[in-house]
Amino acid sequence: MNRVRAAASQLAGLVPYDPKYLPAEALLSANENPRDVDDEVRELIAAAIARVPFNRYPDPLANDLRDLIAEANGLDRSCVLVGNGGDELLFNLALAWGGPGRTCLNFPPTFSVYAANARLTNTAVVDIARRDDFSIDEEAAFARLAEGDIDYVIVASPNNPTGLRAPADFLERLLDATDALVMVDEAYFEFSRQTVRPLLATHENLVILRTFSKAFSLAGVRLGYILANPGVIAEFQKVRQPYSVDAVSQAIGEVVYRHRARFEPGIREIIEERARVMEALRATAGVRPFPSDSNWILLRMDDAGAAWDYLYAGGVLVRDFSATPLLENCLRVTIGTPVQNDLFISLLRAFVAERGERRARAARA
Amino acid sequence: MNRVRAAASQLAGLVPYDPKYLPAEALLSANENPRDVDDEVRELIAAAIARVPFNRYPDPLANDLRDLIAEANGLDRSCVLVGNGGDELLFNLALAWGGPGRTCLNFPPTFSVYAANARLTNTAVVDIARRDDFSIDEEAAFARLAEGDIDYVIVASPNNPTGLRAPADFLERLLDATDALVMVDEAYFEFSRQTVRPLLATHENLVILRTFSKAFSLAGVRLGYILANPGVIAEFQKVRQPYSVDAVSQAIGEVVYRHRARFEPGIREIIEERARVMEALRATAGVRPFPSDSNWILLRMDDAGAAWDYLYAGGVLVRDFSATPLLENCLRVTIGTPVQNDLFISLLRAFVAERGERRARAARA
Repeated sequence: MNRVRAAASQLAGLVPYDPKYLPAEALLSANENPRDVDDEVRELIAAAIARVPFNRYPDPLANDLRDLIAEANGLDRSCVLVGNGGDELLFNLALAWGGPGRTCLNFPPTFSVYAANARLTNTAVVDIARRDDFSIDEEAAFARLAEGDIDYVIVASPNNPTGLRAPADFLERLLDATDALVMVDEAYFEFSRQTVRPLLATHENLVILRTFSKAFSLAGVRLGYILANPGVIAEFQKVRQPYSVDAVSQAIGEVVYRHRARFEPGIREIIEERARVMEALRATAGVRPFPSDSNWILLRMDDAGAAWDYLYAGGVLVRDFSATPLLENCLRVTIGTPVQNDLFISLLRAFVAERGERRARAARA
Repeated sequence: MNRVRAAASQLAGLVPYDPKYLPAEALLSANENPRDVDDEVRELIAAAIARVPFNRYPDPLANDLRDLIAEANGLDRSCVLVGNGGDELLFNLALAWGGPGRTCLNFPPTFSVYAANARLTNTAVVDIARRDDFSIDEEAAFARLAEGDIDYVIVASPNNPTGLRAPADFLERLLDATDALVMVDEAYFEFSRQTVRPLLATHENLVILRTFSKAFSLAGVRLGYILANPGVIAEFQKVRQPYSVDAVSQAIGEVVYRHRARFEPGIREIIEERARVMEALRATAGVRPFPSDSNWILLRMDDAGAAWDYLYAGGVLVRDFSATPLLENCLRVTIGTPVQNDLFISLLRAFVAERGERRARAARA
């Protein structure tokens, strides 16, 4: 067997991103919308796909979808770029504003893909750890930015997996304090009802990331987009794969975006259910839920790893962060349908009760 | 307006890849299959899409499709990786085996994306220009490889846009001569009927790239795959976007691959039409077609730029390489349906005849 030389050194020891997605009755691990598109939208999608010539390359820039998004956001087409999920655009950010000799500012615990993309592109990462309540250490951030070597910053708002949005005034001061490109990841902004979109008018260094994967029930279809000033969009265009967004996804995205008002009741239900699940968690002994502006709740509890096993055995898949630095003993539960949420709550309470009984028996023994 | 600092320096002056795709009666510019999937396959596809939960993330590794491809190629699943078009896998190659301080070997004129990906990943490129007949300068290649600093090599077989496959014995000697990773881009192998697949058994440094975009009429759907030994696949997995292949594309790809025998008559027609178009071009004064193992023909002629204009005015879009280094005065015409090919030939002959008349008038004047 003729051998092959090693891949690039930054890959040594790297473990591919693992979403730990397992089959379960209630999939509450990936912050997906628990409801698929409705039947009427699905029929419109089928009709749109029937018109797509599969044998022809897609429009590289998805201009029809781009125009819909631009119009809805009061922007020109040149301020919008569509990607193969938000993931592609996050990677494009690291390619375009990162790279060898360049540095990004990151606020862990946050979406782990930010740091992974930096590593793949040989971008240095400066971490400013969040405070115990997962708020950003603003003073430390401004002090570090003042050194002048940060090339890009990512702030998730709401922050995944902790839950809260970043304060609007902090984001504006951040944008004013630097010429680094600041990406505000608004993947979940439909659940927080807050956006920095107005700041595009005054900040060339702002890029906003959005996705169709959450509020619009299209995680399986892979569509994300950025909003930014044309000069920033032009740099993203240089590094993107020319045909990254396939023609079928474009057709599906157009139908869904035209009918996005139909997703509003589902979004409202998730926001209401979030409040209900939050109350239930607060009323569960030994469980500390963190406040959330998004479609999930992060919680901390003793024996979180054992709780994850118990929940999964009962048919509920949540995301296990119990062994993740800064998130020790944390689980993240996506807000599902009311039935799924009830199942989750009852299982978690049963786990806590049984653990209490075991401990009591152990104390008596 | 708060300003933004410049993007990474390797992007300065870079022009995004432009496929120059324009509307036309006969689209013969992008090496697409001129025929879409047939109606029966399209119905099966629609039924498969109806079963896809849009709101759930796709299988990151497209394992069902991966298994189909593995079985057809007599390989284990661990030897196959599916990408968002061949494009994604080409970029993954540069990310995994290229990067700062690393070098790739390239044989221009060839697919321009190879060099573009190297630039985006800060990979050095060593070019060994092809000979006048577009064959690879084998002695120069082996001499350069012997220096030991080449990390990866890409050989398109057949080579786009010139047309011929690489000789099988050259590819084997190339794989023996180096521990660099050698990608053989077989995007068009269904039209050449030649593959280096058997060499996977003896060469850990071989990776074969294939696509659904050409023979299988799915350019719009974005599906490509690589075949390689598991250690190579594992490195590609580290750099890929985890959800790059959407669930709908996976469903479409499974239906098409299960029914790939139905694309055989179309492939045979293209091969037969290629011979017919080649004869017609050889019989056209002042036109030099280069031999082709693929679904296009590259030709060289005086006034190629003017010929492109004339063809486009007549409804035929071909690819203009007349101003591309090493391809001066070349056009590339994809083999279309017989009707499209006839239109192309008659327009090209009319252009040559009219030019002859103009020249004769000018000589008399």
